Amino acid sequence: MSGKENISVEQERVSEKRSIVTYENGEWQTPDDEVAVEAPLTIYVNGEEFATLLCTPSYLEDMTYGFLLSEGVIRSADDVTSLDISAERGLVYAELKEFRPVDRLGVSKRVIGSCCGKSRQFYFENDRRTARTVRSDVHITPDQCLQLMKDMQEGSEDFHNTGGLHNVSLGTPEGLLLTRSDIGRHNGLDKLFGYCVRNRIPLKDKVIVFSGRLSSEVLLKVSKIGVGIVLSKSAPTSLALDLAEDLGITAVGFIRRNRFNVYTHAGRISS
Amino acid sequence: MSGKENISVEQERVSEKRSIVTYENGEWQTPDDEVAVEAPLTIYVNGEEFATLLCTPSYLEDMTYGFLLSEGVIRSADDVTSLDISAERGLVYAELKEFRPVDRLGVSKRVIGSCCGKSRQFYFENDRRTARTVRSDVHITPDQCLQLMKDMQEGSEDFHNTGGLHNVSLGTPEGLLLTRSDIGRHNGLDKLFGYCVRNRIPLKDKVIVFSGRLSSEVLLKVSKIGVGIVLSKSAPTSLALDLAEDLGITAVGFIRRNRFNVYTHAGRISS
Repeated sequence: MSGKENISVEQERVSEKRSIVTYENGEWQTPDDEVAVEAPLTIYVNGEEFATLLCTPSYLEDMTYGFLLSEGVIRSADDVTSLDISAERGLVYAELKEFRPVDRLGVSKRVIGSCCGKSRQFYFENDRRTARTVRSDVHITPDQCLQLMKDMQEGSEDFHNTGGLHNVSLGTPEGLLLTRSDIGRHNGLDKLFGYCVRNRIPLKDKVIVFSGRLSSEVLLKVSKIGVGIVLSKSAPTSLALDLAEDLGITAVGFIRRNRFNVYTHAGRISS
Repeated sequence: MSGKENISVEQERVSEKRSIVTYENGEWQTPDDEVAVEAPLTIYVNGEEFATLLCTPSYLEDMTYGFLLSEGVIRSADDVTSLDISAERGLVYAELKEFRPVDRLGVSKRVIGSCCGKSRQFYFENDRRTARTVRSDVHITPDQCLQLMKDMQEGSEDFHNTGGLHNVSLGTPEGLLLTRSDIGRHNGLDKLFGYCVRNRIPLKDKVIVFSGRLSSEVLLKVSKIGVGIVLSKSAPTSLALDLAEDLGITAVGFIRRNRFNVYTHAGRISS
């Protein structure tokens, strides 16, 4: 790590206790319960308010790098001159070598295809600059798919405690390397992305394992990270599958015990 | 309905067929499967690009009204002069009596409290204008909570077919009135909100039933709609509960068969 970060307070607040009222079969009780922490994080870039994310306040430095990378605001970890994080106030001050204010508009401006509005022509302006076709020749067996999902689920205590977090892991076909949790699906991916770029971890031979649904935004982020296989416990959307097809990503869904569905680029999975 | 809408194509595309590859216990098959449709909808207001939503393309006119209402861009259905929707291209052209371009900035600008960044002081600028404390004296029994959730779940065929949709219903304690589905949690709420405002349905005596998690954004939207009880099958976040406490909303979670948790304003639930 570069040592340029300055994080002012302890930041791992994944869940917190609340006293609640429960009802079951006619009986009322008032126990304590664990609830997933959600907090705003506002990112300032070179003094200008850039975006506010609602997130699980953990790994905020990785998440900030991942977010700026996937928005195309930075291209590498070296583009960040300094990062000042106040987790308690939910504020990040990033100083970049270069920041073009035009970047900000690209975050939400839609690119509308010239002909018929078909889904695979849909990207936001910043996505068009940063999403790219994944060139990965990683291969995985069906048993490895099932095992990676099992390992992630069994390792995710926070989810079991609060029921409110998405989990996302990075691994090779042989096993998981790291897992992150967040109330927001993108944020977990940004936490992985930032970690990998800051630590120069090669991504072409990796797999992403995901507890949530595969939406278009998730697929775009996987392509930006540059990973060729995404394994999900849940359902995909039509637009996510169009993008997966287009961007060269193997999308696998509904991984449960001894079964799964392969939606795109099935050639990377072989017994 | 006012008859001022002009919708150019059939718009109910909730799910679509895809051919997929399935794996189960060593066996591969290639069946067709139903996948939830996700499509972009870009809303132009008085000729200016305002926002792009990723949604299930159904009830687009209600969703547009609901979105503009909850963003504080309009105050009533009468503020809309005309609405022109091309569902196929994913475009909405809304003409309003009045549109202040400053509204646009409010959508994403964070309001930062003056002291310590405590969650309940957090709203986006537009939320501060439109979120309000709910004054509702609706009451509900435990059995009614369980029954409403059961009715919504049993009525949601699209979810069972695709596994990829959130359901949200409006009802009284005695029964459901209408249900909407969407790949995005907010969109389903906006579809309800728009329908109610366009049809002048009183909301103080109503309940919202929700299949997804209760995040801060969901609670803010419930307060804007003006409903005093939200019943969820899933988990809440800490910020959602702070807002529910603050905004006078009864938040109920983890409704399963014969049990649930009450997190805030439990006084509205009594046997």
